[in-house]
Amino acid sequence: MAPIALPHTRPPHDLLIEPIVHRALEEDLGRAGDVTSELTIPPEQFASAQIVARQAGTSAGLVAASCAFRLINPSIQFHVENPDGSQVEAGTTIAAVEGNARSLLTAERVALNFLGHLSGVATATRALVDAVRGTNARIVCTRKTTPGLRTLEKYAVRCGGGINHRFGLDDAVLIKDNHVAAAGGIKAAIERVRAGIGHMVKIELEVDTLVQLEEALALEVDTILLDNMKPDTLRQAVVLAKGRAVLEASGGVTVATVQAIAETGVDYISSGAITHSAPNLDVALDF
Amino acid sequence: MAPIALPHTRPPHDLLIEPIVHRALEEDLGRAGDVTSELTIPPEQFASAQIVARQAGTSAGLVAASCAFRLINPSIQFHVENPDGSQVEAGTTIAAVEGNARSLLTAERVALNFLGHLSGVATATRALVDAVRGTNARIVCTRKTTPGLRTLEKYAVRCGGGINHRFGLDDAVLIKDNHVAAAGGIKAAIERVRAGIGHMVKIELEVDTLVQLEEALALEVDTILLDNMKPDTLRQAVVLAKGRAVLEASGGVTVATVQAIAETGVDYISSGAITHSAPNLDVALDF
Amino acid sequence: MAPIALPHTRPPHDLLIEPIVHRALEEDLGRAGDVTSELTIPPEQFASAQIVARQAGTSAGLVAASCAFRLINPSIQFHVENPDGSQVEAGTTIAAVEGNARSLLTAERVALNFLGHLSGVATATRALVDAVRGTNARIVCTRKTTPGLRTLEKYAVRCGGGINHRFGLDDAVLIKDNHVAAAGGIKAAIERVRAGIGHMVKIELEVDTLVQLEEALALEVDTILLDNMKPDTLRQAVVLAKGRAVLEASGGVTVATVQAIAETGVDYISSGAITHSAPNLDVALDF
Amino acid sequence: MAPIALPHTRPPHDLLIEPIVHRALEEDLGRAGDVTSELTIPPEQFASAQIVARQAGTSAGLVAASCAFRLINPSIQFHVENPDGSQVEAGTTIAAVEGNARSLLTAERVALNFLGHLSGVATATRALVDAVRGTNARIVCTRKTTPGLRTLEKYAVRCGGGINHRFGLDDAVLIKDNHVAAAGGIKAAIERVRAGIGHMVKIELEVDTLVQLEEALALEVDTILLDNMKPDTLRQAVVLAKGRAVLEASGGVTVATVQAIAETGVDYISSGAITHSAPNLDVALDF
Amino acid sequence: MAPIALPHTRPPHDLLIEPIVHRALEEDLGRAGDVTSELTIPPEQFASAQIVARQAGTSAGLVAASCAFRLINPSIQFHVENPDGSQVEAGTTIAAVEGNARSLLTAERVALNFLGHLSGVATATRALVDAVRGTNARIVCTRKTTPGLRTLEKYAVRCGGGINHRFGLDDAVLIKDNHVAAAGGIKAAIERVRAGIGHMVKIELEVDTLVQLEEALALEVDTILLDNMKPDTLRQAVVLAKGRAVLEASGGVTVATVQAIAETGVDYISSGAITHSAPNLDVALDF
Amino acid sequence: MAPIALPHTRPPHDLLIEPIVHRALEEDLGRAGDVTSELTIPPEQFASAQIVARQAGTSAGLVAASCAFRLINPSIQFHVENPDGSQVEAGTTIAAVEGNARSLLTAERVALNFLGHLSGVATATRALVDAVRGTNARIVCTRKTTPGLRTLEKYAVRCGGGINHRFGLDDAVLIKDNHVAAAGGIKAAIERVRAGIGHMVKIELEVDTLVQLEEALALEVDTILLDNMKPDTLRQAVVLAKGRAVLEASGGVTVATVQAIAETGVDYISSGAITHSAPNLDVALDF
Repeated sequence: MAPIALPHTRPPHDLLIEPIVHRALEEDLGRAGDVTSELTIPPEQFASAQIVARQAGTSAGLVAASCAFRLINPSIQFHVENPDGSQVEAGTTIAAVEGNARSLLTAERVALNFLGHLSGVATATRALVDAVRGTNARIVCTRKTTPGLRTLEKYAVRCGGGINHRFGLDDAVLIKDNHVAAAGGIKAAIERVRAGIGHMVKIELEVDTLVQLEEALALEVDTILLDNMKPDTLRQAVVLAKGRAVLEASGGVTVATVQAIAETGVDYISSGAITHSAPNLDVALDF
Repeated sequence: MAPIALPHTRPPHDLLIEPIVHRALEEDLGRAGDVTSELTIPPEQFASAQIVARQAGTSAGLVAASCAFRLINPSIQFHVENPDGSQVEAGTTIAAVEGNARSLLTAERVALNFLGHLSGVATATRALVDAVRGTNARIVCTRKTTPGLRTLEKYAVRCGGGINHRFGLDDAVLIKDNHVAAAGGIKAAIERVRAGIGHMVKIELEVDTLVQLEEALALEVDTILLDNMKPDTLRQAVVLAKGRAVLEASGGVTVATVQAIAETGVDYISSGAITHSAPNLDVALDF
Repeated sequence: MAPIALPHTRPPHDLLIEPIVHRALEEDLGRAGDVTSELTIPPEQFASAQIVARQAGTSAGLVAASCAFRLINPSIQFHVENPDGSQVEAGTTIAAVEGNARSLLTAERVALNFLGHLSGVATATRALVDAVRGTNARIVCTRKTTPGLRTLEKYAVRCGGGINHRFGLDDAVLIKDNHVAAAGGIKAAIERVRAGIGHMVKIELEVDTLVQLEEALALEVDTILLDNMKPDTLRQAVVLAKGRAVLEASGGVTVATVQAIAETGVDYISSGAITHSAPNLDVALDF
Repeated sequence: MAPIALPHTRPPHDLLIEPIVHRALEEDLGRAGDVTSELTIPPEQFASAQIVARQAGTSAGLVAASCAFRLINPSIQFHVENPDGSQVEAGTTIAAVEGNARSLLTAERVALNFLGHLSGVATATRALVDAVRGTNARIVCTRKTTPGLRTLEKYAVRCGGGINHRFGLDDAVLIKDNHVAAAGGIKAAIERVRAGIGHMVKIELEVDTLVQLEEALALEVDTILLDNMKPDTLRQAVVLAKGRAVLEASGGVTVATVQAIAETGVDYISSGAITHSAPNLDVALDF
Repeated sequence: MAPIALPHTRPPHDLLIEPIVHRALEEDLGRAGDVTSELTIPPEQFASAQIVARQAGTSAGLVAASCAFRLINPSIQFHVENPDGSQVEAGTTIAAVEGNARSLLTAERVALNFLGHLSGVATATRALVDAVRGTNARIVCTRKTTPGLRTLEKYAVRCGGGINHRFGLDDAVLIKDNHVAAAGGIKAAIERVRAGIGHMVKIELEVDTLVQLEEALALEVDTILLDNMKPDTLRQAVVLAKGRAVLEASGGVTVATVQAIAETGVDYISSGAITHSAPNLDVALDF
Repeated sequence: MAPIALPHTRPPHDLLIEPIVHRALEEDLGRAGDVTSELTIPPEQFASAQIVARQAGTSAGLVAASCAFRLINPSIQFHVENPDGSQVEAGTTIAAVEGNARSLLTAERVALNFLGHLSGVATATRALVDAVRGTNARIVCTRKTTPGLRTLEKYAVRCGGGINHRFGLDDAVLIKDNHVAAAGGIKAAIERVRAGIGHMVKIELEVDTLVQLEEALALEVDTILLDNMKPDTLRQAVVLAKGRAVLEASGGVTVATVQAIAETGVDYISSGAITHSAPNLDVALDF
């Protein structure tokens, strides 16, 4: 049996996933549970089924789907055929399940909701990653994630070949225009941050113009976010930076535009859409 | 000041929303909180800002967005300009906030994540609702929702003019092919359900063919789900049913196809895509 | 070994029961745990015991009792002799347990508290069910349940042969006098509800008089609650309704009165007392 | 306005009550909330109502009922007329509420479920307390409480004039027959307990015979539980003890038997029925 | 294999420990988990390691440390060499672990944080216990514990040979100066307590002078707390009491002073420092 | 009134503190609450008191202490005299409280437990910070924190003038000897990390020898941890590094040794003792 995820995707520890899946199951079971299955299916009936992709894409979410089946019935067998991070075609079997028939039906929808959503995120990420192949740019996500699912969506981004930006407000500094204005300028903002932040926290500064970029470069921040710049301006920014800071481009990133952005020589390209607007990948449970 | 939502949208009680928003804030604050704002913005600085739509659509989610600001700082003023369920254009101000500058920035992303996602659901719903205008068909949602957000997404569907299908496995019976097979036929399945279910629970049966439909009609279930039937077949189903059951069509429902489906005379058309694949509505906080 | 419950009783999924039993155990263990057993009983001592009924009745609650033993010590063996929903006599063994002696004593009280209470509910339900035998009326419960135990008490009602009314405020509509008054009349109330509620939610209307009943029948609601009517009036109501709506009688329902109510021809008779005033069934753990 | 409870009843701190009431409200609101009230009652409608006893008894539970209204809507005014621990007659107004009409109806059932149940416990307690008036015996409760409600039921016992026995397995030692058997005799059991227990924990020993009683008295435990002894034997036990230990009688305690037990001279009489088998006190919300 | 704790230490039930260890692991894993181990260690690599004391002391906390390893990976083998409550030297192996290498490293810090802290408490307790050896005095703890860890720290006190004072505000009465002042004197305070408290709750009174002690003795409280008295005064108190109450001394208790206090003849000596100021015992995980 | 904390200390958001304080209060109140105060103090009695330092040190924890009073009774007034991060002497008033007397006594111990513990951490940190004054070295904390209190202890470190190292396993990479061994060498370990980690995460490598240091410098990691090196070796390390990496020294750090370590020229000195072995600062509530 294949492991549940490809090694480079680094699935989150069960301890972080279980409470989320548990809440999703409670949300679906409500107070009375799966009344339809309980009333129509004999208690000891056994069944087996395949989780099958109905369209091509990158799969992600078996960590959560298998957890849903396990929480409903620990005796269900879950066989991974294509671990998280795999490219699948329409018709590809992702995993097989067997066990108590009622339990399989009770867990089905929650399991598929996780798998379809996270595979959608992985697929959208992969589309951008493929589009910049051949350049040095890497695709990164943002904090524009679905409430409650950040750890899982960040994981789905990794399954799609993307890189994770910070996980929250606290694990890296990102100084935006409002922070600069409140602090009284870029220099003041960075000095304040440096005076108080730990030595293991990276600092990123958002700039809108090349003038700001020059000021930022002089201040030696770790990363500079070039927000909403056209490819031409991005190219000038890369020249200007001469490798003195990591450069990240954001704004207007789509499958259609991302290659041109990547070819400017920026190091990272961030996209909110891969987490907040990725359509579900169609997956089904075939008995 | 406008109320937070249009009356027909029936916002969920705060008791149901607060735990979800609280978890989303914890997810974003992590262990160290909003270090950037704490280090750059004077503690007593005041600010005001507008939540503005960047594209046209149907807004939904102020109930959660306002909750995010309130949980971060109860003294923030939140002024609704266009309550949940409104049609907004690019540039329309949805709400205004004022209060402590740090607090506004700390709550911003979580508030917008809810608002963008739920407005996306409402907008996708509205697109289908508009497409069937002039027919008797109504658009309904499914259990294909984002894990953890069912109550809020069901609400966003209402904001978009849609109707809610059951909220979980327990508040209505939906007999699908696997249930029928396990029970030994449609008749046996329905008899088992009727013997055990409460008198305040509706029963729906999924059928794939007109032959099954006839059997179902004879058994007087409340609703019949016509799964993946072409418009021609749906039209025959409507004729066959003669109003003896509520008819719901599902499968292949898009903005392009929904009008033809509606014109067959079915009562309800269900769509999973409005909850699981709706792209975010672009909303921003302008200071 | 017998299954934990008779099939028609449909025990709630463990996922719904475990948090409730866990809290009950925490409530009893406090901060220092079972100090008496820890100080007097050798750590490796083994024991076996029977859960025995001390009076006749209908048993319910093994799902929770067994969960209490399992949460205290997963190695305890739990053997069901008379599954939930059985008729038991004084002296009947309901289940047998064996395992670590300390663990058995630590879990004993919580297990018996669930079993005694839920068997009490089942027994009170069964008394009404038996009293209406020979009529077409079925006994249903209400939302007058013990706070925190609704899912379990609704299950105990099923163990006693009763039918479940709605599980909460959200899974069915029940229009009472205050709703009618606020809406401006029965017709207005029902129209408002129909305009906003999903197609899978049943609607019940409470009426106090035959005049109201006629109005309700004309509006084709699913169920009509005949509140506090005498048998004579109920009989007239049944004649009036001619099967156009399901009829439910409530008010003044006791073992003494219920047969006369049932013989009026109503379909359902609801009782709050079976959940809120059922005395414990006396059960004990005999070593 | 009267305080929420009579001073001697010592209501539990809100911190202990709120989570219980919160869970009860979540249980009733489910996922979709109070759909009936939301659809029929105008959002701004105001109402006032009285909580009225429908039968005579001792009230208890306003601490929880008021909490239910407050959690649903903090702007609801709650006026106490007869605080917890009062004797009420049929028709007595216990409290008055006024505020948003929807909110009042949404909170009503949960508030009354607490009030009816806890008043039932207080009333049952009071019946025993009244029956032993004139003797020195006091009525105490047990750990035979409804799962999840121990703190509130212990409080209701105080409202009825009773005394609280230990709150759990951990705040006092109670050595029963199984403990004695496992330890190898009464003396061994008590020595083991004394060697390990803190100096602020009282020790009670259960005895079934006068022979055991003599052994227990010699060992100077704080309290001796005389289990299932007839009044004659109890009287001999009192003579034997000569005040050397507190004596508690248990078993077969009813309103009919309790006076005879009390007149034997025992100090405390414990009853499980006052918590596990007390019928609801009928209370209603009259608009 | 040795049991996890020496019998007299009475480890708390897992049900009480698991939620605390779970939260500690969540606190350390954050949202992204142990990124270093996931990126550098092959997923199937196996390892074994010893938990070793780096300094002499009394061990305590294997109950929590083993729980940390088990929650991270149930397949980890945990072998106890020196159970909680053992005297260990620098270099002594306390326990051995073997299993998945990533899992061992992920759980390591949380496991050691519990073990080092609780062993520190046990060691500080043992130092006082050893210092009073030969007298009748016993060392007791207080409510001055680290927030969230009371059950575990009280257990560590037992591992060090100490006795537990009350676990919270609710399981024993301790009347201090402010209570006496508010009640209007010692006598009034005790009378009020006796009128309302259960018969299984002990009463302790804090006194500062021998005059107060005499008043207290006359009132027959269970325990008298002699606060901040010099040894000479304590000796007079012991003479005065003539065994009529248990005497507990507090204030200024250190390893240097405790013997002199014990030799005055008091029964118990309480120390807050053993829980709130005990330095960690240095323990490490050696691979 | 002074703010609750000095600006540079950046107190954690209430959202992060409240659940911790809430649990601490539940732990102290148990099931029956503060029985002593309820029985002796009139319900409406008012009192005022000062939180006073009994010894010199650096205060920290008013954020939690004030939260304890507020959760017990929102009407308590809390006046800060010396905000978190202040140097206080024996006798200095840190804050004043006034309000309901019972409430003040109920919250007292939990409030002081937080304040005493966190002030102890701040004071221990400050001692190291003061000892390195005049050098460029800064004091940093570790993950050796008390389970459940990491956010608060990290804050107390800031109150003492220290710098925070990473908050958990996930917000920075720290490659230790076991990681290096498993990966097959320093170079392989770092390459694996770089291939998978986000661009906003810093990387630290632990080295034991100067040879390893040279290898690490060539690989351009952000920070190098010089573990357990003598000052002479540290000095050579500083020379060798020539500013190419941030250098952090750890091991054997005490008030006696830290100055010599700092004078070697390292950038950061980390100490586990400031969080895991700091004795409480003695604080009291004087009425």
